[in-house]
Amino acid sequence: MNKRVFQILADNTTGVLSRVSGLFSRRGYNIESITAGITADSRYSRITIVASGDDEALEQIEKQVAKLVDVRSVKELDAEGSVYRELALVKVKADANVRGDVKSIVDFYKAKIIDVGYDSLIIELTGNSAKIDSFLDLLRDYEILELARTGIAGLCRGSEGVVYL
Amino acid sequence: MNKRVFQILADNTTGVLSRVSGLFSRRGYNIESITAGITADSRYSRITIVASGDDEALEQIEKQVAKLVDVRSVKELDAEGSVYRELALVKVKADANVRGDVKSIVDFYKAKIIDVGYDSLIIELTGNSAKIDSFLDLLRDYEILELARTGIAGLCRGSEGVVYL
Repeated sequence: MNKRVFQILADNTTGVLSRVSGLFSRRGYNIESITAGITADSRYSRITIVASGDDEALEQIEKQVAKLVDVRSVKELDAEGSVYRELALVKVKADANVRGDVKSIVDFYKAKIIDVGYDSLIIELTGNSAKIDSFLDLLRDYEILELARTGIAGLCRGSEGVVYL
Repeated sequence: MNKRVFQILADNTTGVLSRVSGLFSRRGYNIESITAGITADSRYSRITIVASGDDEALEQIEKQVAKLVDVRSVKELDAEGSVYRELALVKVKADANVRGDVKSIVDFYKAKIIDVGYDSLIIELTGNSAKIDSFLDLLRDYEILELARTGIAGLCRGSEGVVYL
């Protein structure tokens, strides 16, 4: 079961997200992460889906997604020819006694503390998913109160094959 | 029509995304952005939805989402008591002649160039949505070839009212 990354350009309409994600789930593909936001042209959305599942179902899903009326294009991003980034916000339990220790880990990862409370910190970290996983692993001695990961956004490298949106 | 930010904790199951997003779209709420990723406990997903629409429909949607069997909690994040961040990857047409000019804008925003091609650059930028909008506005003299925004992730400040996942 491989992880695969799909990038879908679609009209920015009500319902396109649930139609697209419905096709994945009905075919037994579990969506591990999804991000969707408008493109440079606000009439269109770019949806990035990381999914794992049976390889044979893949071609079927791509075809069905491409057939949806509000979908403009579907492509799979390959690992080598693309860059991927994910954003994580991590709320860690940290009072004055351990704030300094957490700060050292944050600095090491070039992460940022974006909110300080009496007994908690919110940390912002950007990177590929492996970097975020290893950062979270380093924090395991502290209590992670809340974690919000955006899921990955990705673009293929270079200017060839670009869909101009 | 206000923008509202919902944060949903749900079991990490096939189909939960399409059920949740389907409820929003059926009630006429347009989803402006959605991010979904696993939490510190991989059995659960945190879904963040930014939606705009009729205020009256809001209470209904919250109730209906909360009723879904795989949903653990739904809350609305208020603007003052929460931090929001979004990640954008921007591919700009830039050959050797204008690379330096683009670099100055990138440095000013503390953004990062993460890929350099013969005639294009990929830039990574993290911030609130307003910061990303203004960055894109500054780049309007250059051709934006591709843009992938993750949509926002958010956490409420402090450690009160935290759902421990």
